[in-house]
Amino acid sequence: MAQQLIGAIEAGGTKFVAAVARGDGTVLAEARVPTETPATCFPALAKFFRDAAKEHGAIGAFGVASFGPIDIDPASPAYGTFTTTPKPGWSGARFQDALGEFGAPIVVDTDVNGAALGEWQKGAGQGCKTLAYTTIGTGVGTGVLRDGQSLMGFSHFEAGHIGVAHDHTADPYAGYCPFHGDCLEGMAAGPSIKARWGQSLSDLGSPADKVALIADYIAQLATNLVLLHMPDRLIFGGGVMKTPGLVDALRSATERRLAGYIKAPQLDPGLKTYIVTPGLGDEAGITGAIALGRRAQG
Amino acid sequence: MAQQLIGAIEAGGTKFVAAVARGDGTVLAEARVPTETPATCFPALAKFFRDAAKEHGAIGAFGVASFGPIDIDPASPAYGTFTTTPKPGWSGARFQDALGEFGAPIVVDTDVNGAALGEWQKGAGQGCKTLAYTTIGTGVGTGVLRDGQSLMGFSHFEAGHIGVAHDHTADPYAGYCPFHGDCLEGMAAGPSIKARWGQSLSDLGSPADKVALIADYIAQLATNLVLLHMPDRLIFGGGVMKTPGLVDALRSATERRLAGYIKAPQLDPGLKTYIVTPGLGDEAGITGAIALGRRAQG
Repeated sequence: MAQQLIGAIEAGGTKFVAAVARGDGTVLAEARVPTETPATCFPALAKFFRDAAKEHGAIGAFGVASFGPIDIDPASPAYGTFTTTPKPGWSGARFQDALGEFGAPIVVDTDVNGAALGEWQKGAGQGCKTLAYTTIGTGVGTGVLRDGQSLMGFSHFEAGHIGVAHDHTADPYAGYCPFHGDCLEGMAAGPSIKARWGQSLSDLGSPADKVALIADYIAQLATNLVLLHMPDRLIFGGGVMKTPGLVDALRSATERRLAGYIKAPQLDPGLKTYIVTPGLGDEAGITGAIALGRRAQG
Repeated sequence: MAQQLIGAIEAGGTKFVAAVARGDGTVLAEARVPTETPATCFPALAKFFRDAAKEHGAIGAFGVASFGPIDIDPASPAYGTFTTTPKPGWSGARFQDALGEFGAPIVVDTDVNGAALGEWQKGAGQGCKTLAYTTIGTGVGTGVLRDGQSLMGFSHFEAGHIGVAHDHTADPYAGYCPFHGDCLEGMAAGPSIKARWGQSLSDLGSPADKVALIADYIAQLATNLVLLHMPDRLIFGGGVMKTPGLVDALRSATERRLAGYIKAPQLDPGLKTYIVTPGLGDEAGITGAIALGRRAQG
């Protein structure tokens, strides 16, 4: 029997990417839907999958890699439901409602866990037993995989909101996070950078001092990830990470902060193979969503 | 067939506790051996187990909960071996060498992972799907369990060395860690407190300002654990945590730092049920070592 197709959704803060793919990952159809409200977004997704199924064949399983906060515990009655997001309309929205008409199993995980899975299977995380994927973009988030399974506690992780050492004399900016002010997301995410300097680091010409400042905040997450997860590799993606020079500055700052305490072959001098950018570029998310769908097939 | 006995070792920085127990945890014999060098310590342990076996019966499995850094990956050829510890004589020492004559399987984990397991089975961590146990004592370390299994990456975690926000104007102390200066262990472990104030917080009379200062450093680990592991509960043990008022100050500081961002039933107002002290007190470690031995029995 020919294996049924996979429906995949990468749900981001500004747009959803939806795809229908074969089991081997070949994408047969793809669409983009702006992240407005579930009332507009969910019917548009369902229509795309209906049309694609008519053209390419039945969809046997769905994989969703989504922004959060969202319930990703398969044992929870609220699995696949957005929890307390400030995004209007999304609290309580549930992917199963969008996709229920297809009667197919659905696996839901976070966007960063999905991207981590994509990178682990086909990108820069191949061969890693423990892998951390972080996005520094509109928000900051980290997914950690162990043997290809995403880790969680009572919820998915919220790495963006870790506190960071912040010298208010050298950097008087109070931060942009409505909860914490100068947590990592409040200092290093794209909106924070634009709020303080009027434009992105790249548009500013990637000045070395500003790049180093932001890199050192991000390095505090990198250091925490090493000490609290000991991943075999750290992948850093997202829009902010595309700033020229930022990855190198992040490597230097992380190495300086670790100060040689952790000795392991993974931590190469200069961290060039330890801290890397996504091998799949912007395709990590949808690749991961397809991989989640493959798991839903069982 | 009557089940064979369990040999257990809790290996600490100043002393080893060794025990022989029944499968139900009943301790039949116990001994303390000072942590000098493996050349003195290992033969003393072997003699204790030989004598206890003569009196009580054959030992069928060993569990070891040890200070680190130590290889705790059962798949590693160096499983059970101390790695790069500055403690003279211990680098390269291996528990299998100490216990090889008994021809019994050995499970080795870290002291904090062992204590976490003890607390999960019989103490303050019962019923937790994800549990973090932290010791604030001579050193600082955290073990995290998921479904009773300790988490690790390429190594066990090294939570003591996370960086902390440190206002040098309010607190000019440079810290005590030979690698990082003012990392958490450099600011909040017992030796750091004694180095800066001449005695322990308890001996100082637990002054509220100093207790609050230390609590806020520890709270930065608590916050990181929440955001990067989302445990159902945080247990804080170790000598420093016995300071009167410190647990309450830690709860307040952690709640302030989380700032209401994480909403979950686990995080009760005041964190009284979320941040707790060990239910087994100082017995968590040896209880965990016995539990590890039970696993070695298969």
